[in-house]
This record gives sequence, structure tokens and C-alpha cells, in this order.
Amino acid sequence: MTYCVAIKVEQGLVLTSDSRTNAGVDHIASFRKLQVFEVPGERVIFVQSSGNLATTQSVITLLQTAIRNSERHILNVPTMFDVAEIVGKTARQVIKRDEGQAQGVDFSCSLIVSGQVKGEAPRLFHIYPQGNFIEAGEDTPYFQIGESKYGKPMLDRVVNFQTPLDRALLCSLVSMDSTLRSNLSVGMPLDVIVYKSDSLQCGGIVRLQEDNEMFRQVRNAWSEGIRQVFENMPSYTAEICAAQPESRSSGDK
Amino acid sequence: MTYCVAIKVEQGLVLTSDSRTNAGVDHIASFRKLQVFEVPGERVIFVQSSGNLATTQSVITLLQTAIRNSERHILNVPTMFDVAEIVGKTARQVIKRDEGQAQGVDFSCSLIVSGQVKGEAPRLFHIYPQGNFIEAGEDTPYFQIGESKYGKPMLDRVVNFQTPLDRALLCSLVSMDSTLRSNLSVGMPLDVIVYKSDSLQCGGIVRLQEDNEMFRQVRNAWSEGIRQVFENMPSYTAEICAAQPESRSSGDK
Repeated sequence: MTYCVAIKVEQGLVLTSDSRTNAGVDHIASFRKLQVFEVPGERVIFVQSSGNLATTQSVITLLQTAIRNSERHILNVPTMFDVAEIVGKTARQVIKRDEGQAQGVDFSCSLIVSGQVKGEAPRLFHIYPQGNFIEAGEDTPYFQIGESKYGKPMLDRVVNFQTPLDRALLCSLVSMDSTLRSNLSVGMPLDVIVYKSDSLQCGGIVRLQEDNEMFRQVRNAWSEGIRQVFENMPSYTAEICAAQPESRSSGDK
Repeated sequence: MTYCVAIKVEQGLVLTSDSRTNAGVDHIASFRKLQVFEVPGERVIFVQSSGNLATTQSVITLLQTAIRNSERHILNVPTMFDVAEIVGKTARQVIKRDEGQAQGVDFSCSLIVSGQVKGEAPRLFHIYPQGNFIEAGEDTPYFQIGESKYGKPMLDRVVNFQTPLDRALLCSLVSMDSTLRSNLSVGMPLDVIVYKSDSLQCGGIVRLQEDNEMFRQVRNAWSEGIRQVFENMPSYTAEICAAQPESRSSGDK
């Protein structure tokens, strides 16, 4: 599986993706699930992908090919909405191409498309396997794809549109940590992009390896912190437990 | 959906179940998903259920009917292993009875069977939709069924076989809270059982209603606690953010 999360806040975008792909537990590999397309100063587009790797690689390649060969492509359409539409249409084409041979294989994929075109604010879209899509607003400033449930409670509690960029990144790393701990199919290294609104260029993908000291500190501080919270919670439940029948001695039957 | 969790620790068993059932968002109802069978002083058996409600209700009814009419049933077989086998077999029968009419309906169910028969320690089993089952040991002292992912990270971090009963209950309530917050199909009230090893009787099911003061305190303390942990975490990620390109003024293209 995969876990990708994208957060859109006032100051910009924070994107985090794991890199593990697997077809069964003994066929594990590491692939980039976060791609950048840009015309510095004019637009920058990020695509995160989950689902069938053959499908998502085809989608990325077709988007790149279209930039060279087509009249209309993601680097020249006027808005991020048009970009999302092109990506959705491309995903639909690839899935349609392959699904005839199904034989129980799931060819579907989910994508998160985000970025900024000059003249617009940064935008964030979730593209479904059917090729249709939704856009994040201020009420729900994040999207997740892949193994999203383990890491969702943290996002629900902490992130909103006003969260500063570095705290949004910290939250997405904590969310990633919960997922890594509970699900073997999500694995290091992580790819991270922090995009500042109106910079209109990508400073590069930050890759956090297994031994990354910063991420190790985040994981330890979080783990230790919530253990402390739990340990310091009063024994609210002692009353329920005290009310239960005690062990029966052999005589009281 | 449903969320049920069962924890087996040295001091006994802690079982927690939500009570929401739904067939679409406008067909929501509340049903008990936690059943008790007992012969006080001799054995006590708990069944938690998730999945198709028609299936799980049939399974419970057939178990009850067998107690009255069959020679061999869950209240007279010699071990909890035999109990798990009977429950699994019953689930298989019910699913087989209904699945001919499938029409896209999922008739499957998952069950957690736990309890104690005099002469054995308390035992805990997870019964799959296929009727086969696994037993919890000291390494993995808990099972979950239904919407299990939201509440799993907490269990993974906190619970082990030595955890006291009241802390295991507190942890299962926190795990339930994470699930209630992130998934609409899991809902109050909650049913809770705390079983002390060798008591060989059930003190009753504790029902926690929406307005339960203790559960409200647990939720608030947890929510406030982890928000504090997050807020107090150093800004580990500031460096990554600082390294990103700033907004481009119109002159620097």
C-alpha cells in the first residue's frame, strides 16, 4: 500500500508520501510516489499517487509525454482545475486500457494533485479512481490517499487552514509515524515537499531516510509525549472496575 | 459499521463495543453488539460482533437455541477452544444459508469470543468470516473488529499483557474516542464489560450513554493532552521550511 497526505494551509502546501510498494509481503520495493512538474515563476504542480503502480507510472509518463507532444497539457492550461481534469482523464484512460484483462487484479489508483498557477492561490485536489475529483477548502484543508485511517485522528485534531507551514509538516510526520507503526505496507524513506504560497517554484523533494535524525526525534518525542499523557490521566475507570465481582474462592459456589 | 475491541491482560478481560448499525447514512439504529452467556461460578462467555446485522443476530439466536435443544453447546463444552469452534461453525452455517441470494450484499461477519471456563485461564479468540479463528497470546493481547484502524495506534503504543485492568479499559476508551471522531458509522452509546480473572461471573454490561460524565472527561483529557504534546514539540521541521524558496516578487522573474 501507500500513505500520502497533502495539507493546504494559508502559507502554502505540505506534501508527504511514503515510498513502499508491495505485491505480497515478499515483493517489496521503494518507488517515488510524489512527482513535480514546474515552470519556475509561472506554475508548479505536484502529483501524489497510490494504488496500482503500473497504473500510476503510466499516468505520470503520459502526462510527461503530453507536455512534449500535445497542444493542451498540464503546463499550459490556465488553472489548477484544468490540471486536475487532465490528470483525472489520463487516469481514466490508463485504467480503461488495462481493466479488460482484470483476472481479479485491481488496476485502480487514487491521486492527489496540488500546486499553484500564477494568478491563482495554491489549490489541492483529490482525484478518485473514476477520474472525477474534489477540491480542498478551508473547512477540510487536507486529503489523504492509501492507508489513511491510522493517521487521520491526528490530522482531525490538529490541522486547520491557519496552521503554520512548519507545524503542518510536523503534524503530517506524526500522522505518518502512526501509520508506519501500525501498517507494514507503508515504509520509509519518506518524500516531503514544503511549498510556500506564491513562490511558484519547488525547492526540491526532501527525502527522509530511515536513519534521519530529525524524524527520529519527532517519533520519539511524540511517542514519549502521548505515553506521558496516558500515564498522567486520572483513573477515571477505576470505579467501573471496582464494581465487578471479585475472584470466587472454591467455597462460595 | 462497528468498532469492537477486546483486551486480555493478566488481571482479566476488557471488552468495549459501540452500538451503531447503519445501512446507508439515513438508516441508522442502535443495536447491542456485545452478548453474555454464563453459568455463574462455572463459566462466562462474551461474544462481540461486527458485519452484517442479520447474520450476527442469527448467529446469537442459534447459539441460544442450541443451549436449549442441543446436546453439545457453548455452555457445556469443556474448553473455550470448543466454544470458539462452535461459534465459528454457527457463523459459517448462517453465511452459507444467505449467500446464495447475494445480489452484491455482504453477508459476512467477524466475531470476538472471549471468556473463561473453570479450570482454564481466560481466553480470547478472533473468529473470521470463514469461521476459522485465532487466539490472543501475551505478545498480542488484543483483538479489534470493524473500523479498527483509527484506534489501533493507541493500543499498539500502550497495551501489553501486564497492563492493569482499569488502564486497559481507559486505553480502549481512548481508542474508541479516536474512532468515534474520525468515522461517522461508529456511534454511542458504548457497551463495556470488565471481567476479573477467575470471578467466573459477569457483573453486567456497563452502558456509557452520549452524556456519560466519565467518558466525557476521558475524551477531554485525552484531546487536551495530545494537543499539548503537539504544541510543546520543538519546531523540528523549521529547517526544512526555512530552506524553501520565498515568494517571488513580480520583478524577479
